[in-house]
Amino acid sequence: MGRSFIAPEACNCGAPDTGNMEVLAKYGSAAQKDAWLKPLMAGVIRSAFAMTEPGVASADATNIETRIERDEKNKEYVINGRKWWISGAGDPRCKVYLLMGKTDFGAKKHLQQSVVIVPSDTPGIKVTRPMLIFGYDDAAHGHMEITFTNVRVPFENIILGEGRGFEIVQGRLGPGRIHHCMRSIGMAERALELHVLRTTDPSRKTFGKLIADHNPTPIAESRIEINQARLLVLDAADKIDKLGAKAALKEIGMAKIIVPQMACRVIDRAIQAHGGGGVSQDFPLAYMYAMMRTLRIADGPDEVHMRQVAGYEIKKQTQLRDSYAKQKEAENKLVAAKL
Amino acid sequence: MGRSFIAPEACNCGAPDTGNMEVLAKYGSAAQKDAWLKPLMAGVIRSAFAMTEPGVASADATNIETRIERDEKNKEYVINGRKWWISGAGDPRCKVYLLMGKTDFGAKKHLQQSVVIVPSDTPGIKVTRPMLIFGYDDAAHGHMEITFTNVRVPFENIILGEGRGFEIVQGRLGPGRIHHCMRSIGMAERALELHVLRTTDPSRKTFGKLIADHNPTPIAESRIEINQARLLVLDAADKIDKLGAKAALKEIGMAKIIVPQMACRVIDRAIQAHGGGGVSQDFPLAYMYAMMRTLRIADGPDEVHMRQVAGYEIKKQTQLRDSYAKQKEAENKLVAAKL
Amino acid sequence: MGRSFIAPEACNCGAPDTGNMEVLAKYGSAAQKDAWLKPLMAGVIRSAFAMTEPGVASADATNIETRIERDEKNKEYVINGRKWWISGAGDPRCKVYLLMGKTDFGAKKHLQQSVVIVPSDTPGIKVTRPMLIFGYDDAAHGHMEITFTNVRVPFENIILGEGRGFEIVQGRLGPGRIHHCMRSIGMAERALELHVLRTTDPSRKTFGKLIADHNPTPIAESRIEINQARLLVLDAADKIDKLGAKAALKEIGMAKIIVPQMACRVIDRAIQAHGGGGVSQDFPLAYMYAMMRTLRIADGPDEVHMRQVAGYEIKKQTQLRDSYAKQKEAENKLVAAKL
Amino acid sequence: MGRSFIAPEACNCGAPDTGNMEVLAKYGSAAQKDAWLKPLMAGVIRSAFAMTEPGVASADATNIETRIERDEKNKEYVINGRKWWISGAGDPRCKVYLLMGKTDFGAKKHLQQSVVIVPSDTPGIKVTRPMLIFGYDDAAHGHMEITFTNVRVPFENIILGEGRGFEIVQGRLGPGRIHHCMRSIGMAERALELHVLRTTDPSRKTFGKLIADHNPTPIAESRIEINQARLLVLDAADKIDKLGAKAALKEIGMAKIIVPQMACRVIDRAIQAHGGGGVSQDFPLAYMYAMMRTLRIADGPDEVHMRQVAGYEIKKQTQLRDSYAKQKEAENKLVAAKL
Repeated sequence: MGRSFIAPEACNCGAPDTGNMEVLAKYGSAAQKDAWLKPLMAGVIRSAFAMTEPGVASADATNIETRIERDEKNKEYVINGRKWWISGAGDPRCKVYLLMGKTDFGAKKHLQQSVVIVPSDTPGIKVTRPMLIFGYDDAAHGHMEITFTNVRVPFENIILGEGRGFEIVQGRLGPGRIHHCMRSIGMAERALELHVLRTTDPSRKTFGKLIADHNPTPIAESRIEINQARLLVLDAADKIDKLGAKAALKEIGMAKIIVPQMACRVIDRAIQAHGGGGVSQDFPLAYMYAMMRTLRIADGPDEVHMRQVAGYEIKKQTQLRDSYAKQKEAENKLVAAKL
Repeated sequence: MGRSFIAPEACNCGAPDTGNMEVLAKYGSAAQKDAWLKPLMAGVIRSAFAMTEPGVASADATNIETRIERDEKNKEYVINGRKWWISGAGDPRCKVYLLMGKTDFGAKKHLQQSVVIVPSDTPGIKVTRPMLIFGYDDAAHGHMEITFTNVRVPFENIILGEGRGFEIVQGRLGPGRIHHCMRSIGMAERALELHVLRTTDPSRKTFGKLIADHNPTPIAESRIEINQARLLVLDAADKIDKLGAKAALKEIGMAKIIVPQMACRVIDRAIQAHGGGGVSQDFPLAYMYAMMRTLRIADGPDEVHMRQVAGYEIKKQTQLRDSYAKQKEAENKLVAAKL
Repeated sequence: MGRSFIAPEACNCGAPDTGNMEVLAKYGSAAQKDAWLKPLMAGVIRSAFAMTEPGVASADATNIETRIERDEKNKEYVINGRKWWISGAGDPRCKVYLLMGKTDFGAKKHLQQSVVIVPSDTPGIKVTRPMLIFGYDDAAHGHMEITFTNVRVPFENIILGEGRGFEIVQGRLGPGRIHHCMRSIGMAERALELHVLRTTDPSRKTFGKLIADHNPTPIAESRIEINQARLLVLDAADKIDKLGAKAALKEIGMAKIIVPQMACRVIDRAIQAHGGGGVSQDFPLAYMYAMMRTLRIADGPDEVHMRQVAGYEIKKQTQLRDSYAKQKEAENKLVAAKL
Repeated sequence: MGRSFIAPEACNCGAPDTGNMEVLAKYGSAAQKDAWLKPLMAGVIRSAFAMTEPGVASADATNIETRIERDEKNKEYVINGRKWWISGAGDPRCKVYLLMGKTDFGAKKHLQQSVVIVPSDTPGIKVTRPMLIFGYDDAAHGHMEITFTNVRVPFENIILGEGRGFEIVQGRLGPGRIHHCMRSIGMAERALELHVLRTTDPSRKTFGKLIADHNPTPIAESRIEINQARLLVLDAADKIDKLGAKAALKEIGMAKIIVPQMACRVIDRAIQAHGGGGVSQDFPLAYMYAMMRTLRIADGPDEVHMRQVAGYEIKKQTQLRDSYAKQKEAENKLVAAKL
């Protein structure tokens, strides 16, 4: 329910396909591209990204426990683990997962992980249930819980090589977050449009006045917040284009925090303006809210990104302080030498 | 889905039964009490309250359009109209509705309405669909849309008499809002308990620390907000007991605004602390949020109550100003007379 | 007190000089430019802008009551009225006021006003007191209350002509607001710098940790809010450059609302991080807060600008709705004609 | 400036006298009471409390560095140190300080401190400057910085005995915080009164309407927030009366956090409603704001109290969890034994 309201899929720019296509385009072998990137770009199949696990605090990606073990005889990887929140895996057209697990539990913290390509019809895969978001199952798309029991894929299904998983995920998440932000701004715009139309509907006056005339401030607040958030996203995207995703981590982090928070507020104002209709199936607003609220948790909760943004700021300011102190000291020595 | 998480029904103190029982106890005839109040108090049947209509801005209760017409020959009222958000009407045990409609469209604004008792199996009643709340159908309880087509009940089913509907509803809503507030505070307490237990769970550390130790402020904020809200509700309840619901309208209005807003914030913090689990079916938090968000709209949106509370305050202050000015003037006259 | 902390004057880009220089550059005669623009740009003199009046609700600029009357015999204007919050008029170097008053009380609402140049040493001018901002007199600059009693200036001191006052003020306020925003962002940056340095000062640990390590979120919030506000201002400035101030009214209004609110929050966080020092004379933070809080009122309070921004949004959305409805109707006619 | 606006002193219930009188009443010897408590209660003299020090993070009271050393020969304590924010020490009627310092730097953390009575005219005391609060010097009262250089008082001036200082201060701060809260609620009430009167003043219409009619929500918000805060304070006071200050620490902490935050918001809304007047000397609002903002820092910043309130909540919930787990285990054993 709900999914039909919003359709980035219409332009083949929906999550998680966009991120997966970028991973294949950037890191995939020629054979991997032929097999999976082409049909994805043609919109013939859909894909999912299998990373999050139920037993592990999602804020800290290094804790992942799914095992990817080598079977040298058969030249196959054997996968065992449990994943949840695998968005899109409920869709019958979803033919492939990019799965992150650990190939080496003894390696350095960020070199234990690998990403492998797993066709969704491989034996041993069991989709156990959809995760609900508030009361929405988000079918047919779905956010599925999946167990992998002795799931086997050939060695050539690994992307980039063993131990490169963390690197791939990092490369995927940066632009992926900006895609999410862009879709979210579109939702916020749609919510504001509904907000304005409802509160200026001549047939919905209360106490003799249009609702918008009682207090127009919520409309202005939503417009301002959308514009500020959009500018932040454009600034991050501009930096990715010019300097690469790594140099734009601070800007991406800021957008990741702000956009879903902003969209939640904008949608919430629209809900309030719609009365009972706002929380119901008669408008897309409650569904949008559920999506946006979830996005404040997905790909790392606000708190983790806040900590990183603060870290960048502290580093910048304390470096400035230290370099100024050094310069001052050098000057003082020069002055002393002259005397 | 979701309903099983919270059960004021276990103590027979769930909405809308509490309010309906109060109406029958206060305004019902002996026969009406025998027929409906007794089985309700015994917990044998359930009830619903049919007031809200889809075509009308819910903030202004005088706009209701359902017709209750007299058929003198058969000594029956004939009811025609459409209602929605009829909570509890989805339950097969729901045997009776208290329905508000207009008996006289030409009367003064607050004397047009009447309340009649309508058994739920009366011919002409059609339950058309459940209203969803953030995707939850809240079954079996349900928030139903119902059409009434030439629904007939005997004259003696009217409560208190024709034209007394607005008065009954006002009498019902005051204490009914306080009931809602009390149930909501219970939910907020449960959310905070989950919040604390999750963030102090030793198996859920992030970056080597308990989540609660990263930043304990959200826990403190929730505790403080719950306590403040509870005190406000107790203060309103105390005033209802001592002076009656009418004298406590300001206090009731304040509680009606604050408690659902508070509960939304407290639950939202708990959701954030639970990560993906928080928005899913694995915890009751998202369902609670949906209930509490809806309560900011039900029984009149925040804005309407804000306007009323401000009105009381303005009246009090301007009366003080005027009485002080008069007193000053009288004193001045006295002084002038003495000179 | 306080003024020395911040010095846009060092670059001759302080208020109200920037706005006054723009008015003279844009609307002044050659003689007016020679007399006043040149020394202002050279930084030899300072200026003030005399608009706000104590008896009138500042939100509505058409209410101004200062009279500018023609004395045909002497070819002079005679000015009578009372002004307050005349910033910069306390500075002994302040040699000229641009004064707005009414030349024709009977004209249309926006054609009653005129702006005249009044040298600050003209007889009849009396500076009665400085207005304090919180406890700051902001000397030497000052925000003065001034009475004008039969103050006479020659006819040629009028700018642009009689009845052009409202137009000049509008032209002045747009870019003037953006100047204010830019200076405010500078203050917010300075506050964040102090915030970071204080909370990472190794000699100021509490309970064994750097203050910034207890909870880094406030630092991240301030950085994000500053960046969002700066982007909004740059966007407005860009639109002014490309399309002119009039086409950028919506963007200017949004920046005027957001920037002082943002700066107040950023500075307030820095104050909290500084403990008792934060509110005292030992840091510039309390003074900055006072300035920024005042800016939420100066040049029109937030509420007025909110109303305008909402108005633009409502107009856009309802026009879209209507044009879509018309298009639909035309299509329907076409279809009907074909059948 | 400013002080005359508010006068708890009129009822002899101003800070820091109330707290000091309580200390003397509770812990003072008969001679100390005769010498200082009597004239204080008679309102003949005023007093100050000398605790805070400029070099130390105020959030952690154990860091205090002022020395109180024994001179056995002269049976005198010799005091050396620097204090600031000594409120009331600017008043010429202030005849006595209660000073906290360390008598034993080697003792356990909470047994190093002592409180001694120091007459304000003792040689070696130098009041160096007033601390400003948002530009206000708060004269004559004053918040002074004071140096103590070999200041000598007789042994009998110690209160309760050496090493009892922390205990005294704790006993003083609890009720002292509630006094502050009560005075603050009075300020908030006064601010709301001004807010209402200004926005309903018929001579101050904007765009043809009373300001309160444009949007009455701020008035309602302030009324609700004041009532909630007052109830929290009454609840804490009730608990102090019934169970003592120690048992009420959680409630006191909650009030200490909430009341100044609430007062800042209420006053800020009133400032906004007053336009330029609101930040100026023409109304008491900006001064009140400065006082209330400072109170969020005085007696421990919000963050420290938040941490404590969270601590109480976590302790309560985890104890419940553990005792429930134990009970469950015992039950399981019983069941197993029966089988």
